[in-house]
Amino acid sequence: MTVQHYNQTGEHDVVTPDRSSFPLNMWYVAALSKEVQNKPLARTLLNEAIVLYRTADGQVGALEDRCCHRALPLSLGTLEDNGIRCGYHGLLFDKTGTCIEIPGQQKIPSKAKVNSYIVKEQNAIIWIWFGSKEHPEPTCLPPVYSVHNDEKYLYDGDVYHYQAPYQLIHDNLLDLSHLGYVHLHTIGGNAKIHMNAEMNVEQMGNSVKVTRYMPNSTPPPTYTAAYPFKGNVDRWQEITFFPSHLEIWTGAVDVNSEPFDSPDRGGFHLKGFHGVTPETDETSFYIWTQASNPSSSPEENMKLVIEQTALTFDEDKVVIEAQYQNLKRFKGKKLVDIHVDVGANRARRIIEKLKIDQQN
Amino acid sequence: MTVQHYNQTGEHDVVTPDRSSFPLNMWYVAALSKEVQNKPLARTLLNEAIVLYRTADGQVGALEDRCCHRALPLSLGTLEDNGIRCGYHGLLFDKTGTCIEIPGQQKIPSKAKVNSYIVKEQNAIIWIWFGSKEHPEPTCLPPVYSVHNDEKYLYDGDVYHYQAPYQLIHDNLLDLSHLGYVHLHTIGGNAKIHMNAEMNVEQMGNSVKVTRYMPNSTPPPTYTAAYPFKGNVDRWQEITFFPSHLEIWTGAVDVNSEPFDSPDRGGFHLKGFHGVTPETDETSFYIWTQASNPSSSPEENMKLVIEQTALTFDEDKVVIEAQYQNLKRFKGKKLVDIHVDVGANRARRIIEKLKIDQQN
Amino acid sequence: MTVQHYNQTGEHDVVTPDRSSFPLNMWYVAALSKEVQNKPLARTLLNEAIVLYRTADGQVGALEDRCCHRALPLSLGTLEDNGIRCGYHGLLFDKTGTCIEIPGQQKIPSKAKVNSYIVKEQNAIIWIWFGSKEHPEPTCLPPVYSVHNDEKYLYDGDVYHYQAPYQLIHDNLLDLSHLGYVHLHTIGGNAKIHMNAEMNVEQMGNSVKVTRYMPNSTPPPTYTAAYPFKGNVDRWQEITFFPSHLEIWTGAVDVNSEPFDSPDRGGFHLKGFHGVTPETDETSFYIWTQASNPSSSPEENMKLVIEQTALTFDEDKVVIEAQYQNLKRFKGKKLVDIHVDVGANRARRIIEKLKIDQQN
Repeated sequence: MTVQHYNQTGEHDVVTPDRSSFPLNMWYVAALSKEVQNKPLARTLLNEAIVLYRTADGQVGALEDRCCHRALPLSLGTLEDNGIRCGYHGLLFDKTGTCIEIPGQQKIPSKAKVNSYIVKEQNAIIWIWFGSKEHPEPTCLPPVYSVHNDEKYLYDGDVYHYQAPYQLIHDNLLDLSHLGYVHLHTIGGNAKIHMNAEMNVEQMGNSVKVTRYMPNSTPPPTYTAAYPFKGNVDRWQEITFFPSHLEIWTGAVDVNSEPFDSPDRGGFHLKGFHGVTPETDETSFYIWTQASNPSSSPEENMKLVIEQTALTFDEDKVVIEAQYQNLKRFKGKKLVDIHVDVGANRARRIIEKLKIDQQN
Repeated sequence: MTVQHYNQTGEHDVVTPDRSSFPLNMWYVAALSKEVQNKPLARTLLNEAIVLYRTADGQVGALEDRCCHRALPLSLGTLEDNGIRCGYHGLLFDKTGTCIEIPGQQKIPSKAKVNSYIVKEQNAIIWIWFGSKEHPEPTCLPPVYSVHNDEKYLYDGDVYHYQAPYQLIHDNLLDLSHLGYVHLHTIGGNAKIHMNAEMNVEQMGNSVKVTRYMPNSTPPPTYTAAYPFKGNVDRWQEITFFPSHLEIWTGAVDVNSEPFDSPDRGGFHLKGFHGVTPETDETSFYIWTQASNPSSSPEENMKLVIEQTALTFDEDKVVIEAQYQNLKRFKGKKLVDIHVDVGANRARRIIEKLKIDQQN
Repeated sequence: MTVQHYNQTGEHDVVTPDRSSFPLNMWYVAALSKEVQNKPLARTLLNEAIVLYRTADGQVGALEDRCCHRALPLSLGTLEDNGIRCGYHGLLFDKTGTCIEIPGQQKIPSKAKVNSYIVKEQNAIIWIWFGSKEHPEPTCLPPVYSVHNDEKYLYDGDVYHYQAPYQLIHDNLLDLSHLGYVHLHTIGGNAKIHMNAEMNVEQMGNSVKVTRYMPNSTPPPTYTAAYPFKGNVDRWQEITFFPSHLEIWTGAVDVNSEPFDSPDRGGFHLKGFHGVTPETDETSFYIWTQASNPSSSPEENMKLVIEQTALTFDEDKVVIEAQYQNLKRFKGKKLVDIHVDVGANRARRIIEKLKIDQQN
């Protein structure tokens, strides 16, 4: 069989997905491990349509989501021991994207293959490498997130699809002062206390850490339900931004029981993982888990934590998507910065620099 | 804090809403008073995204629907005694669009403000001024519509959103000969009688008045239900077009009991207010009320009148939206005028002239 | 009344529907007869918005779906003895597209007319002629499909709307090797048997015939339910492509009871009619019937056949629409041919040649 040009659209240029809006040469969060089990998962990441799947031996693969024969998404196919089989005419592809079987045909053309991606499953997260032309192979290991493997914690999570570009999610997470307004009815608490809390911002390489400490404050109801606090608490928010994800540690200990700079402080706290991965220039995946250490009724309290977290993120989604629609509606109109923007602006400069660096 | 350019879309031109499709230097109907009560109302008018709201003292305000900080629509915010507070980080704006509070920050940058609009509430209608560059301030008072304040009448109304440009609604209202075809099953009556009724069209300045008199005709069922007619009736339709709205007076008196030129004639009649305000070049708001003077079971009959009116306007909406889709589908194909178009064509010429005048 | 230019969109060029993506000077399937009964049918064919309707005398007409007065789709109108009446102001049009009545107006302007199309109802199918400029009148008769008038058969059918261009439906129908993958759970049977069956492709003029014979194979459950087969069967698939439609004959007889080349062979078989008509460049109508000759419980078995056929076509629709979305997403990427594509590629070359011929 010959390879020929088969063009439905009457045009002859191949459209190459555009990665230029995103920093490259880094690992992105592709999915939670629990999402990729016994059927293929179609997911567009950085403008590229990808199928993620797991073969019978437990290995995760990632291919271009398109059969090389007649372009059906491979994500509509079926999983076999040694690959994924197209749901139209049964072509079978291995993890490298090579077609290894064409039903009814002995010779397999050498051009019968599709693109493959480098993925690595670690800490119950599936990471995917997006390199520039110079770095098709990873130049580093994926980030370690050991909380998912720590027996002290229970955790669960979910994936949200956002009709908004990824950096608006960074902005939101790096500035928890919005809790008092957006999350008034869930985890909010007193708006003024959040707004007036001392905030510290420090940058280490391509990472930004924003901390807020609220010593001697009243614990919110969700905290007292999960832990026998004696009275007032020392409460903290520690947000660490990385280009691929954010880690947010919020919690409380009894007043003056443990110093704010102890990395092992107990009390009741939440450790959030927040993968923020562009789908397209205008849409994103928000891939999150929430871990906690409830001391009483752990399963039940954990279920509550996840439900509350989901409610809270629903509120954020409404705000961020409305914000993006409005940014387009009022395109180009100048915005005014305020005190809470320091962390978010740092993160934006890091992303900007990463994009400039990869062009040189 | 400095003011910086914060651009999500990678483009640097400010998009100014385009008002050139619409006559300016006039008051438009923004909303019915009943729509703007205890929460903000987002409404795009003449391509501009606006939030309409009422503060605790009962005053109506209208601002650009966008916080100057991170662009969240202010319509997602909350109302306070002295302004509207953004639902993201809590900035508070007064009626002039000036930011008067930034939670957690003492100094308010002078650039922290948004556009405001001139609105005036009168006769249970909220009017908004759209001026050209030369006339940011009103050059006249809003139209008076005293029916809403007349104890002789009961009234109610609603707001319809149309996927069609505003002038197609003018056309429809200025030519009630469509009653026999579009409204066959509601208020229609005999198509031929409507079509053959003598029609008079007169123009006074920027206003057009179309009248049809149907002497000695059978009253429709809705009329006889609301009023003890003795037999046949003298029936009338009087439609008055203004660039911002139309007033339609339809009704009937017992045959030969009152002259058609008496402005105080009784019987049973309906006085309709029809605000027609562009949302965008392709969509519109139709803001209507229907007032009547039922002599028997007034509440009950009035409820029927409103229900029937709504059903009728639903039928018009189907027709007008289908018409607009078809005008786009067959874009540019010539249309043929018939006898019923005289009033509508006059109104189109008035709008055309207003647009030309404001360019000079 | 004068004819004037009435332009909602501010542009002055008439948009002529573009037929250049499609072969012309041929009859297309417009509808099944059962679709055009007591109310108008709006259907866009080859980018042209058409109303199909049947007058009281049983004649089928086809007009431009737009009143020449104010552009309302005529398909929103009503049927009368001698034409179709617009649902806005009541203009009445005859089968040639001429306006023959304007309510309330005596003189009918000569320009009051709309385009008409040549349609012919035959074998319970409504055919429509699309000619080039050189051939506005048919140069041949519509295809004959006598199965619909053959008492040996029961049949029924339906119309599917596809979000995919018409040639992808040709591809699908010309290659039934997909049965083992796409239709695994309905009519599929053993994928390998289908894929390995000997396939013969022959071309006669603008027609392509693909045949597959599977002698001495196990009959599928639907076959044994409808016919008392003695054991194994000789099974066949005969697909004949024409530019306007495909005919597919599939069935089985007892092993060695009747030769594969007999045109009258019995057993249990299905005769499918598959009209494939472009709606636009990117969408299509798939207008099908399935006829059969069940020997036991004919009504009941026929109902089952139609249900199963519909389920099967639902599966094809999912695949073909996903395929088209993916072809757009990966626009211009080369595809690899395999052995099953011979018939489909022949059909594509025929369509290509027809389009080239009509340009000369």
